[in-house]
Amino acid sequence: MSQALESYIRWETDELVLLDQTLLPGEVKYIHLTDEHDVFEAIRALRVRGAPLIGVAAAYGLVLGMNRQNYATLDGFMTELKAKRDYLASARPTAVNLFWALDRMVDRVQMEARMMPEPSALKKALLDEALKIHQEDRETTFKIGEHGLSLLKDGYGVLTHCNTGKLATAGIGTAVAPIYLAKERGIHVKVFADETRPLLQGARLTAWELNDAGIDVTLITDSMAAVVLKQGWVNLVIVGADRIAQNGDTANKIGTYGLALLAHSHGIPFYVAAPRSTIDLQIKDGSGIVIEERGAHEVITCHGFEIAPKTVKVYNPAFDVTPHDLIAGIITEKGIVHPPYRENLQKIF
Amino acid sequence: MSQALESYIRWETDELVLLDQTLLPGEVKYIHLTDEHDVFEAIRALRVRGAPLIGVAAAYGLVLGMNRQNYATLDGFMTELKAKRDYLASARPTAVNLFWALDRMVDRVQMEARMMPEPSALKKALLDEALKIHQEDRETTFKIGEHGLSLLKDGYGVLTHCNTGKLATAGIGTAVAPIYLAKERGIHVKVFADETRPLLQGARLTAWELNDAGIDVTLITDSMAAVVLKQGWVNLVIVGADRIAQNGDTANKIGTYGLALLAHSHGIPFYVAAPRSTIDLQIKDGSGIVIEERGAHEVITCHGFEIAPKTVKVYNPAFDVTPHDLIAGIITEKGIVHPPYRENLQKIF
Repeated sequence: MSQALESYIRWETDELVLLDQTLLPGEVKYIHLTDEHDVFEAIRALRVRGAPLIGVAAAYGLVLGMNRQNYATLDGFMTELKAKRDYLASARPTAVNLFWALDRMVDRVQMEARMMPEPSALKKALLDEALKIHQEDRETTFKIGEHGLSLLKDGYGVLTHCNTGKLATAGIGTAVAPIYLAKERGIHVKVFADETRPLLQGARLTAWELNDAGIDVTLITDSMAAVVLKQGWVNLVIVGADRIAQNGDTANKIGTYGLALLAHSHGIPFYVAAPRSTIDLQIKDGSGIVIEERGAHEVITCHGFEIAPKTVKVYNPAFDVTPHDLIAGIITEKGIVHPPYRENLQKIF
Repeated sequence: MSQALESYIRWETDELVLLDQTLLPGEVKYIHLTDEHDVFEAIRALRVRGAPLIGVAAAYGLVLGMNRQNYATLDGFMTELKAKRDYLASARPTAVNLFWALDRMVDRVQMEARMMPEPSALKKALLDEALKIHQEDRETTFKIGEHGLSLLKDGYGVLTHCNTGKLATAGIGTAVAPIYLAKERGIHVKVFADETRPLLQGARLTAWELNDAGIDVTLITDSMAAVVLKQGWVNLVIVGADRIAQNGDTANKIGTYGLALLAHSHGIPFYVAAPRSTIDLQIKDGSGIVIEERGAHEVITCHGFEIAPKTVKVYNPAFDVTPHDLIAGIITEKGIVHPPYRENLQKIF
């Protein structure tokens, strides 16, 4: 596998090795996590981030935590497992993938314990499940990449927003997965990356990882997207998603909705790429998605410097909702879903 | 006059007093400039900025420079005047207003010298001309404010971009002039200020000066404008202009074009406010306006910190062009000009 497809997280016998994202883009440093406390700290301090990646890291954290000790009884093992599960789950209390992965690990042990109630066998099951979670996430991103790749041609320009890449998943990302595969297959794609204020995930992470993979990437401020589209440099826009409603309305990083409107104004197709787990068929439309508002300091300060008056009012929604009628297609691991979404999203479940 | 209408530059007997803009938004400090070197340094170091304000400061700089010495002959006076004119003109070699103001000062002296060739009289003429330039700029902004005010109603929301306020002119600005007058008249207007990446003039300057004047201002990142428009919080968008072509196409700070498209998508009127000196009837349309591209460091660093990889490619146009058909009206000191612009812009000259 070429360097372009290698991810920034790996399991090595009895340690989890991952890139410390808090040091990017200035410094590239891998950290070696050897127990559950290391993993807890890495998740809490955002050294590892991105919903799928947090889940994978936490699963390995449970493996590391349970491997450190020998257990005489099944009861002792189960008590300790649940304590460590709760501990790791508290590293980032709103990360859904974190709980999902940890609960899946505990479920697996409970199932195994009925057949083979030996702590040493259960430890093996834990590692097996963590590797599975990791592998499944990787495969999902490669499948999204393959489906998305069908939209790309040599010489195409693609504009993207926020970070949805190798730094956010255990594989090759979502919205940028097709770009990694294009690189692998020798198809030249020119990427424009929105810096994505206020937290600058596009500048710090997307620009860094695409550059690192040798992909042709140009960084722009969010306010430059309109001009880039007008110049005719972009054939399609692809973004990720935080939540997709039954009718295709999509919540994603703030700035996505405006970008979808600008793409529409210039007649450029706008795609969303996301795993099926992002689609919530319980939510009828975008009006049912609650948008988190975050603190003023994210907009007012930069590396501790005041870039706006401390006392000014700030409106800082973390996400926005793009209405389904601005979305040309939703790229999932099961294929590209086209409108009408209310009918077609159901078909992939 | 209420505090809201006071500007950040004033002439005091024999010194020029102005707010040091490089210290904003963290520190409010007025500096006292007493000779042409002080003024040169203030312009060069961007302590004073905004095209009209630079012109006013330079005119006073020439007054200060010539007042320091006594001249025995007219020849001696004229030689020194031209040397100091050239010196001040070199403070920012691309600022058109700087040359315009300095040349107007020299022209005035040359005219006076024909009637009254006495150095002491010419010094008085210089101060008189500087005060005139200052006063004319102030009046222009108040007239723009009055015309723009006719568009505002109590309770309105206005979105603006970049800095076009008291920190950019010797008066109350251009795009925000109507907002200052509304404040003065007790009409409540809620302002949303785009932070305006990459140089953050909206965050550092507009948010600061509106806050300072007690105006209701909310700071947003550029990427949040679409959501703010969608919420129905904005009744009109008003921006400034760097150059307006014969047909109304308008060059302004990067991000303006995208904002105009977003306003159009939401059915919200989009206005440009600018003095007539911004309108260039020699330029047929926007295609004739050359857009300056600036260095990557503006996008890559923030207060010296790397917010993106040092080696990444960056596209950093300083301006963009908004096509005339997205502009509801152009607010000038002679009134609001409506389409068709090719006909109607000529009428105000």
